[in-house]
Amino acid sequence: MTNTIRIFGVDPGTATTGYGVVDSLGNDAYKYIASGIIQTKKDLNTGERLKQIRQDMLELIQEYKPSVLVVESIFFFKNAKTVIPVAQAKGVILEAAASFNLATFEYTPMQVKLNLTGFGKSEKKVVQHIVAQLLNHSEIIRPDDAADAIAIAICHARMSLSSYLVSKNIISV
Amino acid sequence: MTNTIRIFGVDPGTATTGYGVVDSLGNDAYKYIASGIIQTKKDLNTGERLKQIRQDMLELIQEYKPSVLVVESIFFFKNAKTVIPVAQAKGVILEAAASFNLATFEYTPMQVKLNLTGFGKSEKKVVQHIVAQLLNHSEIIRPDDAADAIAIAICHARMSLSSYLVSKNIISV
Repeated sequence: MTNTIRIFGVDPGTATTGYGVVDSLGNDAYKYIASGIIQTKKDLNTGERLKQIRQDMLELIQEYKPSVLVVESIFFFKNAKTVIPVAQAKGVILEAAASFNLATFEYTPMQVKLNLTGFGKSEKKVVQHIVAQLLNHSEIIRPDDAADAIAIAICHARMSLSSYLVSKNIISV
Repeated sequence: MTNTIRIFGVDPGTATTGYGVVDSLGNDAYKYIASGIIQTKKDLNTGERLKQIRQDMLELIQEYKPSVLVVESIFFFKNAKTVIPVAQAKGVILEAAASFNLATFEYTPMQVKLNLTGFGKSEKKVVQHIVAQLLNHSEIIRPDDAADAIAIAICHARMSLSSYLVSKNIISV
């Protein structure tokens, strides 16, 4: 029995939201499906930027039909000034996921690094090279926000791979 | 020439979002239109709670057809733990406003208190009594989140009353 799970990873932000879609094939094997960024213009007001993020998210979810959405949770103490715009974007993204009844999960940047590299404070480049290796890509995913989104998707796959959720078929494709 | 402006005030939160609608009639005169709270159940996940807030906001905006939406901006240093759920709700609310092409404005709690009472650190009860007086209500607005939403709406009315926006007819009903 196969348990392929399509995972939609998101690195939220009001100016740039990264996304990455991977199929988790089991046994720590992954298939790259898509990745990219949603960019919003500086001259739009916050509401208009969030509206664009929501619309793009709805279209991406419809296109790729993931089983779960995984989002980077906000690391409160790191960038105090960026917490609010990131949280506002995350609110819109979680709402978009809920409108498709998608299960959502959150991991901190440190959890993602620990899971992928064995060290919670690894350099971004180290994470990106491990992600490329797991996807059998000769090059790292670009730009950074898309790579972060793929990394969080793989982190979730590993966390749930042999876990209760899959074994009980609570999540399946 | 009259410049009645219908203002929709919002005090955002993932558990409870307060709202209040007032007509600003000019010369510091106001007409109370509506107020209340959007409450979401604790057993819903964040995405589902945000989805409900968005849907209720869309219905309220459709019902009351305000000219502007005014939202309490997040006072970062006060309640560090509550910043993220409040910002997530605010994101959804600003997105809902943008989907109606509503102009939005933000004021901090201190700006609202200063505007209504002349002192930025007034007690909540003092603000509520001044709001009731301005609306010719014998009782204060309840609950607190709805009263806060009405207060921010009146704050905006006062800020814009004799201002450029009205005089130039950029905002009108």
